[in-house]
Amino acid sequence: MAAAALKLITFADRKGARVGALIGEDKVLDLAAAWAGGVHASCAQDMLALIEAGPPALAAAKALLVDAPAAFLLDRAAVTLKAPIPRPRRNVFCVGRNYMEHVAEGDRTRGITQSELPKYPQFFTKAPECVIGPEETVPAHAEATKWLDYEVELAVVIGREGSDIPKERALEHVFGYTIGNDVTGRDLQRRHGQWFKGKSLDRSCPLGPCIVAAADLDASDLGIRLWINGEKRQDSRTSKMIFDVKEIIHQLSAGFTLRPGDVILTGTPEGVGYAMQPPQTLKPGDVMELEIEGIGRLRNSIAGAAA
Amino acid sequence: MAAAALKLITFADRKGARVGALIGEDKVLDLAAAWAGGVHASCAQDMLALIEAGPPALAAAKALLVDAPAAFLLDRAAVTLKAPIPRPRRNVFCVGRNYMEHVAEGDRTRGITQSELPKYPQFFTKAPECVIGPEETVPAHAEATKWLDYEVELAVVIGREGSDIPKERALEHVFGYTIGNDVTGRDLQRRHGQWFKGKSLDRSCPLGPCIVAAADLDASDLGIRLWINGEKRQDSRTSKMIFDVKEIIHQLSAGFTLRPGDVILTGTPEGVGYAMQPPQTLKPGDVMELEIEGIGRLRNSIAGAAA
Repeated sequence: MAAAALKLITFADRKGARVGALIGEDKVLDLAAAWAGGVHASCAQDMLALIEAGPPALAAAKALLVDAPAAFLLDRAAVTLKAPIPRPRRNVFCVGRNYMEHVAEGDRTRGITQSELPKYPQFFTKAPECVIGPEETVPAHAEATKWLDYEVELAVVIGREGSDIPKERALEHVFGYTIGNDVTGRDLQRRHGQWFKGKSLDRSCPLGPCIVAAADLDASDLGIRLWINGEKRQDSRTSKMIFDVKEIIHQLSAGFTLRPGDVILTGTPEGVGYAMQPPQTLKPGDVMELEIEGIGRLRNSIAGAAA
Repeated sequence: MAAAALKLITFADRKGARVGALIGEDKVLDLAAAWAGGVHASCAQDMLALIEAGPPALAAAKALLVDAPAAFLLDRAAVTLKAPIPRPRRNVFCVGRNYMEHVAEGDRTRGITQSELPKYPQFFTKAPECVIGPEETVPAHAEATKWLDYEVELAVVIGREGSDIPKERALEHVFGYTIGNDVTGRDLQRRHGQWFKGKSLDRSCPLGPCIVAAADLDASDLGIRLWINGEKRQDSRTSKMIFDVKEIIHQLSAGFTLRPGDVILTGTPEGVGYAMQPPQTLKPGDVMELEIEGIGRLRNSIAGAAA
């Protein structure tokens, strides 16, 4: 247990929502209970407060992982996991076209067979209320889009404020990592030119299950995978990003201040539904299972009964 | 005075920031003072609270415009105007390429002489902390961009929550109108493909000076103008929008919930600096003056001394 990674969660039971940590496969450390009345008490009510509290609170949480008193442990099955940051303070930042094989598969749908390596990252956003947690459903959005699609992505959570961040110092600004599903209305994305409309449908940003503290995870070469109804659709490694986490933070922060609690989705690898032969779209009842090595699995379904 | 439009402001003096209304050219009605101890007291501390309070608070503010007691009036020169919504709860939504002559001038810079009418609005965002008020400066951002540009835009403030809003009911969701300056790093906008990076430099969204209540302003055909150092650069009418306010709200709200306090910039007319012959860029000390008929003037300069 001594070397276990700190996996922070926001969870809820009948006492309400608060911050905890995953212990092994089946236990949750209730940080609100552990810190009640202490200097870190306010941090345990809200992940954004914990992030803003900085290294001392993080160290205190980490220390509790070793021999956590049983009184502060809950059964994971007895609580509901929410998105680790249930409502970011501003839009979730996203990077498009950041894995070469995904660039190529997208180009092919438009008849382009010789893809060029992007020279600069493409940034767009999803509204904060798009964020949902594990165990929640994504609406089918049948009225708004005829083509709902999935995208597994490594999500970076910013811990320290900064602008004009040099690449070599970028990781000092990372609080931790989680998994994001950049659910997209492909027809909207394409016809509106700029992507916000297709990317920001209500409840289209599942996030979770936990934030792994940056000190406990080297995110530069992790397996990243996605299954639809048990069928593997995406399977790559974060080392295949065109712009790595350091470069993304460097470029996004040029003249623009990143803040604690900001979430950055770093792009998806190949295997999205719209580029398949024949093209596939998400349907009511479909189950999306996303996995990133060292973080865990994020599972959400499309609302409505299966056809 | 009985027919005066309600022009809501956020202002500050040594008693702090609060909500008021402009009275003529040189007075400010201090709503916090007028409502102290009453049912609307909390609304006068924060424009977002006033917006969320809905029609009763708005009616109460409007009623005070007629024969406001002198005790609640301040000299406009004695207070500082802030952005009417100093910090929106999520990114400012923006529409690109929404005036045909602006589409054409942009196309010409890329060698396109036959412009097509856009079929769908292009939506992108600016981070909430980009918002600054009248009397504040925009950084020159010389490190991040070599090409800072201005854009005068009608800004719509949402008053009532809704998604899938039909066009014919769209205006029921509007709280009021203000002026936005969509300051842009043109080189960043172009090279990153998606526009967020070029559109979201720190302090790049001047907003104000006031929000005119929707009931008091028909925004469908207003003069919209911009001057740089006194030279008129933009001069059009909101009736020339390709997608009008109703259509923008209708399309943006498809599968996406608009919320009270949301701000939507509706696009800029022709006359931006990068499309001029020869192209012009903003420089330290430049003064941008924006005007929309019925709302007022919004004046901001670029930080740093003039060359």
